[in-house]
Order: sequence, then structure tokens, then C-alpha cells
Amino acid sequence: MSLAASPAPAFTLYDYVLSGNCYKIRLAAALLGVPYDSIAVDFYPGFEHRSEAMLALNPAGTLPVMKTADGVVLTETNAMLAWLGLNHDPGGRWYPAADPVRGPRLVEAMSFGAGLTGSVGLARLHAMLDWPVDGAAARRAGKRDLRQLELRLTAMQIDGEDWLAGGTAPSMADLACFPYVALSPDAGLDHDGYPAIRSWLYRVRSLPGFVTMPGIHDLHELR
Amino acid sequence: MSLAASPAPAFTLYDYVLSGNCYKIRLAAALLGVPYDSIAVDFYPGFEHRSEAMLALNPAGTLPVMKTADGVVLTETNAMLAWLGLNHDPGGRWYPAADPVRGPRLVEAMSFGAGLTGSVGLARLHAMLDWPVDGAAARRAGKRDLRQLELRLTAMQIDGEDWLAGGTAPSMADLACFPYVALSPDAGLDHDGYPAIRSWLYRVRSLPGFVTMPGIHDLHELR
Repeated sequence: MSLAASPAPAFTLYDYVLSGNCYKIRLAAALLGVPYDSIAVDFYPGFEHRSEAMLALNPAGTLPVMKTADGVVLTETNAMLAWLGLNHDPGGRWYPAADPVRGPRLVEAMSFGAGLTGSVGLARLHAMLDWPVDGAAARRAGKRDLRQLELRLTAMQIDGEDWLAGGTAPSMADLACFPYVALSPDAGLDHDGYPAIRSWLYRVRSLPGFVTMPGIHDLHELR
Repeated sequence: MSLAASPAPAFTLYDYVLSGNCYKIRLAAALLGVPYDSIAVDFYPGFEHRSEAMLALNPAGTLPVMKTADGVVLTETNAMLAWLGLNHDPGGRWYPAADPVRGPRLVEAMSFGAGLTGSVGLARLHAMLDWPVDGAAARRAGKRDLRQLELRLTAMQIDGEDWLAGGTAPSMADLACFPYVALSPDAGLDHDGYPAIRSWLYRVRSLPGFVTMPGIHDLHELR
């Protein structure tokens, strides 16, 4: 006879609650139902991601960091999303990387999502934490990226496609792009002028198992 | 009776001979034996990538652009490498994206390769074409990236791994990283201090079907 045990954690996430990139991993794990351990890293004001212990784990000094139960350390957010999809999504729906048509679109949209860190993400750091960067330039880049996404989603709507890697099911591409788009109001970039983005954000928020983070509204708050 | 016809081109590449990102596609197509059409775009001094016709094809105004025989337009270099691997490598060796172990490493290294465009690539544009950017900052970022790659390759050597996605066969990860690493001397970043990088560059240059570009030496020139 045994008592019900907690499921074994699949990975440890070195996590900062206000980071959009950390949230991508929390969101993917929640949607896929993957249990994990979380270690809070004091990114600000503590700059703990630059501590000796964290640099030993990730010499690039970025967050998040993922350490899998097998001891693999991943430091690039899209690689973590790939790992989750390949190892913890038995149906293989979330990471269709081997699909000859959707695979290249998945790469394209996940790259776009990573790029948002340097536009919207940087503008947000500047607005929220007085990060020492050219905030106006970052905001311009963020606006350019939002416009490009709006155009892409509008063109996709015409083809009846709801999700960024194409087809009728969400993928890691949507999760790679969602956080910094949803968080862009933190940087003074609201969604009023982007109807296709607003619909897509709503679809992502409606996914079963969706979890939120500070700065991203729950669906019921939008109704 | 028919005369031997040229094989049908699989895609059209909008190409600039001095671009490291364009070269990634030429190199991948050469190694996989994929026939394609090439359209030269006068990036410099003509800025033809910003012409109305090119912006209609790729609103982001970047090169390369790939148009497949099926009419799919791809504008992100890693997505083009994925497309080539998924559609024109019958053995599936060059793009092991669905491998639970190599797949995430492939993503990580391909992202690193894309990032080199903004460090080594920008320093090279500054050095060669007087591009109006902070050349010293770009060179510092380039040196940081080369050091990081040297550390990674050195750690991999200890595990007996020769190629960036792990294992014993090259992949699109190597092709995504090779050009700007090989071209870094154009930006004043030579390879003298990086023995692991030098060995890896040599391995890539030794691949059957390897083609070169201006600024990248043929193997016989190094002997």
C-alpha cells in the first residue's frame, strides 16, 4: 500500500517571476501538465543571475536556466520549449518541428518570439526598471515588431489559420511569442490598434491550463 | 528519347554574395545537393533589399529571402535551413529537430548562430562597409561569442563530440554558426586564440561538397 506521491519533477527552473522568458517555460509546463521545481533568482534588484553560483551554471548570465532531471542544462528559452515538446508531450502536438510545412514556420515564429526580448522586452525593462538602454529606440523596435505580427496574423486569418506555426492547433511558436506581446503595455505599447493580435492573445489566454503572470490579465478581467 | 535536362530548381534564393546569412543557404544547398535559382540583390552600395519589389517580398527588408517551388516565402535564415533539411535531405540527418536529445541542442546552437549576425556580423559590416553602428561594441560582443563557442566546443571535445548539435554527424546547427565564425577575421577577430574553433572550422571545410565565399579560405589555402 502506498500513499499517492507527488509526481517527480521533470526539471528545475531557475526562475524570475517578472521575466517574460521565464514565464514562457512556466506557461508551457502548465499547458502540458509537466511538474517541475522552481528556484527563485533575484534578478532585480539583487542581480543574482550574475552571482558566482549562477554564472557557474550559465556563463551567459541570462534567465531562465533549465536543468532537466537527466542533468542537461539548457540556457536558451526556445531550446527549453523544444525540450518540453519533445520529451513531455506524448502526442507531439506542441512542437511539430519535423513537419515539412509547419516545421520551418515554427522556426520562423519562434525566432520572432526570441527577437521580441530585444525590442518589447528591452523597452519594458527600460520603462519598469530604468534599465540603462535607449528606451525610445527599443520602443520603436517594439512597435515595428507588433506591426509585423499584426500583418502576419491578419494574412493568416484570411487562410483560416489561428496559430503562428499554421494549422488549427497552438504550438510552442505561440508560447514563444505570447509573453512579450501580452506584456507590451508595460512598455507603453498598448494593443488598441492591433485587432488580430488582440484576438490571438485571447485565444492563447483561453487555452485549458493557461496560467498568468504579473502584467498579463486573466481572461475574466477582460470581459 | 530525351536529352538530359537540368534538375528542376527547388527554390529561388534572393542572394548577396558577401552576406554570411545568404552563404548559409548556398552552403546548405551545396552540401545537400539541392538545385536552386539565384537572383543577385545589390545590398551594397545599391540597397536593393530596400527596393519596393524586395519589400513587397519581405517587408522586413532583410536578406536572404527564399521562395520555394511551392510558392512559400521564407525570410528567416534558420527557417530556410529547416526547410532544406525537412524537404531535401531524404536521410533526415541534417535537421534532427525531432530527436529528444539532439533537438533542443540543435535549437540552442541555431539560435546562437543567428545571434552572431548581431555581434560578429555587425562588427564585420562596420569594418568592411563603414556601417553606422558602434563598431567597438559589436567587436566586443563578437569576441564574447567566440569565447563562448570556444568553451562549448572544448567541453564537447571531452565528450568525444565533433559537431554542435552533439553526436558524430554535422547538422544545420554547424551551418548556422560556421559563416560568421569563419568570417570573423574580416572584423579584426582572428582565430589564433581559439584552437577548438579552428579544428571545428577545419571539419566543416572538409565536408564533401563544401563551397566557399569571399573571405573564407578554401582548405588547400590553409595547408
